[in-house]
Amino acid sequence: MSSTKDIDALIELMAKLPGLGPRSARRAVLHLIRKRSLLLTPLADVMQTVAATARECLNCGNVGTLDICDICTSEKRANGELCVVEDVADLWAMERSGVFKGRYHVLGGTLSALDAVGPEELRIPRLLDRIPSENVTEVILALNATIDGQTTAHYIADQLEGEVRLTSLAQGVPIGGELDYLDDGTITAAMRARKTL
Amino acid sequence: MSSTKDIDALIELMAKLPGLGPRSARRAVLHLIRKRSLLLTPLADVMQTVAATARECLNCGNVGTLDICDICTSEKRANGELCVVEDVADLWAMERSGVFKGRYHVLGGTLSALDAVGPEELRIPRLLDRIPSENVTEVILALNATIDGQTTAHYIADQLEGEVRLTSLAQGVPIGGELDYLDDGTITAAMRARKTL
Ligand SMILES: [Zn+2]
Ligand SMILES: [Zn+2]
Repeated sequence: MSSTKDIDALIELMAKLPGLGPRSARRAVLHLIRKRSLLLTPLADVMQTVAATARECLNCGNVGTLDICDICTSEKRANGELCVVEDVADLWAMERSGVFKGRYHVLGGTLSALDAVGPEELRIPRLLDRIPSENVTEVILALNATIDGQTTAHYIADQLEGEVRLTSLAQGVPIGGELDYLDDGTITAAMRARKTL
Repeated sequence: MSSTKDIDALIELMAKLPGLGPRSARRAVLHLIRKRSLLLTPLADVMQTVAATARECLNCGNVGTLDICDICTSEKRANGELCVVEDVADLWAMERSGVFKGRYHVLGGTLSALDAVGPEELRIPRLLDRIPSENVTEVILALNATIDGQTTAHYIADQLEGEVRLTSLAQGVPIGGELDYLDDGTITAAMRARKTL
């Protein structure tokens, strides 16, 4: 149907989002068309804005609209604690829990021999630079409890041994679990019960 | 974080889509930001276009960019067969199967005493008008095999009894199943084995 070319293109693009397949993309597009003024138009507008303004913080890898994010520029967050996470989604999960008052470092993934992901791909050199330049005294390795997450934590711990206090999230992180799936209370408990490596 | 206001707004709007909750909306937005030029910008553009152009066919309720859709204006599809479906998604599912060569009528839901949905809400008056004006000889009631779907089919069958041949999809539609979940082969089989009511 030639007159539905743009609708077909919209379905195809929506189906590329994580969590949406072709069928749920079609449902979503019909929903968008039905809720044109309440949902479709505002969504298109804010997508334009985000496409024009979103960027990764050059210091920590957080996503925002500034070259250096609010957390990195806030003097209140310069308490010597640096929380290392795999992904921006994990940083957001931490912030929602409200338990952590320091700064973050987003690796952007985990080391992986299989996928040939080395330290250079992971913002690890930048992490090592930040320890002296931001007077970091404790690095909290809040990586996922997966094999790759733990391998990455051990690698970073090796690099930083003797330089800073190294801790990891403790109680509450289930084996094989991913941080971003946890509720705020669990994250809070795990952070409070963190243990020295 | 004030600098992420637009990103937060984007997450909130995405979470309103069927099939996406807050967590999957956050994941989707991070994915969009990472794939800015490949996904976010094209998606914003095509959403603007669809918001400006999408409309319901005044005759059948199909969604497209024309006041009267391609199927309704195509003389090839005027074969006397009219397939009645609940939803545009069902029409699309039928079209993907490629088995049906006639025209459609999208009810936009089912009759429901509980939700106070009567014939007027469902484009049923328009359906009755189309029978003489488009020389319809067979009405295929392709409604979902749910209680409301079947109640609606019986209501329409009562209205049209004696005027046209009335059929329904037969073999292959599972009890309680919804048309849009079926594979194309099942829809094809059900259409070929349709039975007179
Ligand atoms: Zn930052
Ligand atoms: Zn039409």
